[in-house]
Amino acid sequence: MRALVYHGPGRKAWEEVPDPTLQADTDAIIRVDAVTICGTDLHILKGDVPAVTDGRILGHEAVGTVQSVGSAVKNIKPGDKVLVSCITACGACRYCREGSYGQCLGGGGWILGHKIDGTQAELVRVPFADTSTYLAPSGVSDENLLMLADILPTGYEVGVLNGTVRPGDVVAVVGAGPIGLSAIMGAKLFSPSHIIAIDKADARLEAAKQFGADIVINNGREDALEVVRALTGGLGADVAIEAVGVPATFELATSLIRPGGHVANIGVHGEPATLHLEELWIRNVTITTGLVDTYSTPTLLSLLRGDAIDAGKFITHHFTMDQFMDAYDVFSRAAETSALKVVLTRS
Amino acid sequence: MRALVYHGPGRKAWEEVPDPTLQADTDAIIRVDAVTICGTDLHILKGDVPAVTDGRILGHEAVGTVQSVGSAVKNIKPGDKVLVSCITACGACRYCREGSYGQCLGGGGWILGHKIDGTQAELVRVPFADTSTYLAPSGVSDENLLMLADILPTGYEVGVLNGTVRPGDVVAVVGAGPIGLSAIMGAKLFSPSHIIAIDKADARLEAAKQFGADIVINNGREDALEVVRALTGGLGADVAIEAVGVPATFELATSLIRPGGHVANIGVHGEPATLHLEELWIRNVTITTGLVDTYSTPTLLSLLRGDAIDAGKFITHHFTMDQFMDAYDVFSRAAETSALKVVLTRS
Amino acid sequence: MRALVYHGPGRKAWEEVPDPTLQADTDAIIRVDAVTICGTDLHILKGDVPAVTDGRILGHEAVGTVQSVGSAVKNIKPGDKVLVSCITACGACRYCREGSYGQCLGGGGWILGHKIDGTQAELVRVPFADTSTYLAPSGVSDENLLMLADILPTGYEVGVLNGTVRPGDVVAVVGAGPIGLSAIMGAKLFSPSHIIAIDKADARLEAAKQFGADIVINNGREDALEVVRALTGGLGADVAIEAVGVPATFELATSLIRPGGHVANIGVHGEPATLHLEELWIRNVTITTGLVDTYSTPTLLSLLRGDAIDAGKFITHHFTMDQFMDAYDVFSRAAETSALKVVLTRS
Amino acid sequence: MRALVYHGPGRKAWEEVPDPTLQADTDAIIRVDAVTICGTDLHILKGDVPAVTDGRILGHEAVGTVQSVGSAVKNIKPGDKVLVSCITACGACRYCREGSYGQCLGGGGWILGHKIDGTQAELVRVPFADTSTYLAPSGVSDENLLMLADILPTGYEVGVLNGTVRPGDVVAVVGAGPIGLSAIMGAKLFSPSHIIAIDKADARLEAAKQFGADIVINNGREDALEVVRALTGGLGADVAIEAVGVPATFELATSLIRPGGHVANIGVHGEPATLHLEELWIRNVTITTGLVDTYSTPTLLSLLRGDAIDAGKFITHHFTMDQFMDAYDVFSRAAETSALKVVLTRS
Repeated sequence: MRALVYHGPGRKAWEEVPDPTLQADTDAIIRVDAVTICGTDLHILKGDVPAVTDGRILGHEAVGTVQSVGSAVKNIKPGDKVLVSCITACGACRYCREGSYGQCLGGGGWILGHKIDGTQAELVRVPFADTSTYLAPSGVSDENLLMLADILPTGYEVGVLNGTVRPGDVVAVVGAGPIGLSAIMGAKLFSPSHIIAIDKADARLEAAKQFGADIVINNGREDALEVVRALTGGLGADVAIEAVGVPATFELATSLIRPGGHVANIGVHGEPATLHLEELWIRNVTITTGLVDTYSTPTLLSLLRGDAIDAGKFITHHFTMDQFMDAYDVFSRAAETSALKVVLTRS
Repeated sequence: MRALVYHGPGRKAWEEVPDPTLQADTDAIIRVDAVTICGTDLHILKGDVPAVTDGRILGHEAVGTVQSVGSAVKNIKPGDKVLVSCITACGACRYCREGSYGQCLGGGGWILGHKIDGTQAELVRVPFADTSTYLAPSGVSDENLLMLADILPTGYEVGVLNGTVRPGDVVAVVGAGPIGLSAIMGAKLFSPSHIIAIDKADARLEAAKQFGADIVINNGREDALEVVRALTGGLGADVAIEAVGVPATFELATSLIRPGGHVANIGVHGEPATLHLEELWIRNVTITTGLVDTYSTPTLLSLLRGDAIDAGKFITHHFTMDQFMDAYDVFSRAAETSALKVVLTRS
Repeated sequence: MRALVYHGPGRKAWEEVPDPTLQADTDAIIRVDAVTICGTDLHILKGDVPAVTDGRILGHEAVGTVQSVGSAVKNIKPGDKVLVSCITACGACRYCREGSYGQCLGGGGWILGHKIDGTQAELVRVPFADTSTYLAPSGVSDENLLMLADILPTGYEVGVLNGTVRPGDVVAVVGAGPIGLSAIMGAKLFSPSHIIAIDKADARLEAAKQFGADIVINNGREDALEVVRALTGGLGADVAIEAVGVPATFELATSLIRPGGHVANIGVHGEPATLHLEELWIRNVTITTGLVDTYSTPTLLSLLRGDAIDAGKFITHHFTMDQFMDAYDVFSRAAETSALKVVLTRS
Repeated sequence: MRALVYHGPGRKAWEEVPDPTLQADTDAIIRVDAVTICGTDLHILKGDVPAVTDGRILGHEAVGTVQSVGSAVKNIKPGDKVLVSCITACGACRYCREGSYGQCLGGGGWILGHKIDGTQAELVRVPFADTSTYLAPSGVSDENLLMLADILPTGYEVGVLNGTVRPGDVVAVVGAGPIGLSAIMGAKLFSPSHIIAIDKADARLEAAKQFGADIVINNGREDALEVVRALTGGLGADVAIEAVGVPATFELATSLIRPGGHVANIGVHGEPATLHLEELWIRNVTITTGLVDTYSTPTLLSLLRGDAIDAGKFITHHFTMDQFMDAYDVFSRAAETSALKVVLTRS
């Protein structure tokens, strides 16, 4: 088969590799029907994730068709259309039994395209298939379903649920890239009074409006803290969601919330941030971090079947898999191409 | 009357001052029967709290007898024995209506001995008396009741409840001074599997054992992280409570918890700390801060009447009020005197 | 002034009575600008609420203008436009301090038009005015604001929040009268997958669709249990909200939910119901009851200023106060007149 | 092997049967080292559980040693000492993924000694062994560990956690048989102010004191409602736990709680109860039911290793397995024999 293979920092190729085979009786082999590229894949290509080594097939999101399953797999069978989640779950360890699949101690967690070969390929081996895939609901396109592999549960769980967004809240989202937009889409499910998007790129703020932000702040030009305070009688936002991953945006998020407010960090950070405890110690704040666990996938599947979530909004570009190098090029130049999510399907 | 008056950094006196009078119809004048000194009072005396100005009577904890009440006070009357809480609550603002009295927007919060004259005096004026005092239950001594003015609700709310201690948990308490001991006493109410006390002073660790810690670590000599990991199969503690207020102890607390764990900060911080988001972003951690709200006072009053809380354990020294300067001396040299809480009563 | 006075079962009059006066320093006298009639008022007129005696002015919902306040009232002043909540809160008792104002032990709770004279009058005395009224937000009409006095918080708190409606849920609402419609409107704030309205009157089911139900069942003709099971793969609804108040509808609600589901009772019941514990004991169900507490009023005020809640949808008929007898007539014949809420304003 | 076999109402025998064999690759065969009898087994023997048919081996609680495992079993291996939980969990269905193993849709739930052969035998086949057994912690006896198979998680989850017992609460437990005692032991973990045991047998009330009740009421002689009201200033208990399973005790439990209180039903009911909604609709009560899910087993295992839970207190009688008929006799005459839990071990 062909696959997108990492060959060290800055080097990748769409090339011929051996087909994957069942290694454990809980594995499934899935034919990939739709696959996408994540910002994390770009980080890997920069060499930021040393656990990924030369020869690894990238990718941790897919919709596909089951080809074969190990003898212990009960819930999916050849021919089934399934969502392959970015998180693999052994289903039996302490964390899996509490729904914290991202923290799986039994060999799961984020492993696809990281510790084992991933989904950017014609076929993918998925371990613990019973607890790591979801049957596709009828009436949902492969492309829309694909958005539930990572980006939608990440924004919803790590941003919205960790931040405990409630009806009537003022929610500030720092960063209006795909993850920030996912948090905006998720926040709207709880009917906040205001969703404020903060970014330095006007194009992203324009997208934020399309996803449901009613107030946008370009913090290259405007003082976000001042705008938020003016809106909230000086108190601050109920919830601030960090969706960038650098110290400055995290520190901005912690400054925006009211006493008793919540900061939900989604961003992937490469260095420490400063926590202004000399101001925050007295303000009853809650700060959360998290890798997505995907425990919300069943909920999001229900919502996808209705009108509550329009997952298609994320998809800006379409390719066939033999155009994988082009797709990476477009996605990596998002500022110019306005790419949010690119989808690749079989030729 | 006589009162303990602050006269700028390093200067205080037990001196004659005018008696307080009712200023608002929601005020009460309380005769102070028992009063204590808080670590915060020592901070004020160092000049660390600029809002406290020359001439201010210090103190925010008392048990006393109602002398007179304003016309709008309904729930206490002259002659009643009451607990004067460290937090004053208007009872009608947004925060008070949610039980966040420490964040009161209506003129309350921590004001006694801070923005208005406090309790280290023969008489004290208590604003919003209906929602800022509690009738003394029968059968509880003034001294034991006094521990509910600040230290017990602080450890319980900001440490134990914010940290969501649950039966079976492993709880690490960083700092075994009076606040850390209060957190240990509060944590025991939830039957954790282990309470680990961490401090650099052996005498404090000895006290921690008396209050219920079953494991003590002198982190001047031992590696706390290593001990906690060995105890928890490498995962870390379920809850870490910071009860010191300096960057190093906060950073230690964030390193001790398992994925999915909670850090509850109680310490009063004067400078920022480093938050290692490059490690924490992926670990599903929750970090909380807080000034005490005293919403738990009714619960603690119930427990005080039974055997669940032995508040008297905190009281190491007794004085009469005319010995106030001596009491400050003993309390400020806690390392030598082993003082936890000192209690002053009427002569 | 003139007021709607109860004179025993079946007898009422819009008649001249003395103006109310301040009785306690926490009282306010409010000029009534908009007032409505509740189903409970009809119950009182039937003689079902013996605590209401001859001579009582009815009504517990109003929007008005402050005329005068007692000396202890801090937060409203003459000239302010305010919402008069159906629940009066002393603000200082155990229940008020936990936000359970409906259970106030300090002289509040549901007292207006019940234990003291109510709002169906040109003037009304409101006790504990600071914690029982809310300043009107700008840009909201008196009529829309009036819907926050009772019906909207009742459906939201007792139905939606007690039932813990979450995104993706299947919510069944038994009874599509005004309270059921309020529950439907509130449930939509949490983006459920389906809202099922169940009633025997097609006109009410038509209204339910306008309020947001996507599935309607006439249980005079259809088997509600069968429809719900077909929709949910045989499991049952996540949440069932009872909004009628008779045994049959409560028992229906308990039969509709899935294992682990919630039944939220809003209905005012006059007789016991049968609880089928022989089936329910093993199904992990949660059943809640409740009088509205109105703790959600600030949230609903925020939502009212935005587009999330269209309170005007409830208002089907307008009268001036001198038409009070006509208004009662129309409201009491809702099946014929299709009345949901009638609003009376000053002539 | 030999096993305790049900032969229709009133008939059972300890007789020779074929050894169980692995049927699915997720099965394990466990040698039973310690086993007990549950009140439910007595119900089955009366013919109350029609799903149990002639020839079924009874029993759903065991501690044993793994003999063999199917090819898909990862977490236990021959020679391991394990707890066999009363609840079998497929680990992959909707309910299992939420920790509601008792409601498993994938072939689990309460099946041992009910739908498949059970643990009252020398060997037992346990389906879904990875998610239905727990490795024995070191330093815990087989007998004490056995109490975690059913009785302790049932009292803790269905009584204490469903009832949301909190520090300072007044908790009333209706019924002081083994399940009521388990609820008392579990409630103590949360440091309530009072635990009130209510029963008609003085011997059971005496046992309740040993388990931690500080107030006992013989409701054959005393008016429980009056005692509870006197203790609580007329309000009622915070939590009432029903541990009998007949209408009268359920109705008593609903009468005992304060406004805002919780009734947690543990009892297995064979007929409907009357729910006094004409009184309860206005009192903000929460009523829960539940089959045990055993999600708390890891927590209870942690507590068992410490001093927080003394599981051995339940064990009143010891037998070897060849005395199974005698053990049933003693357990079925608990009123005379004072049996709480009987334990049978290998000869």
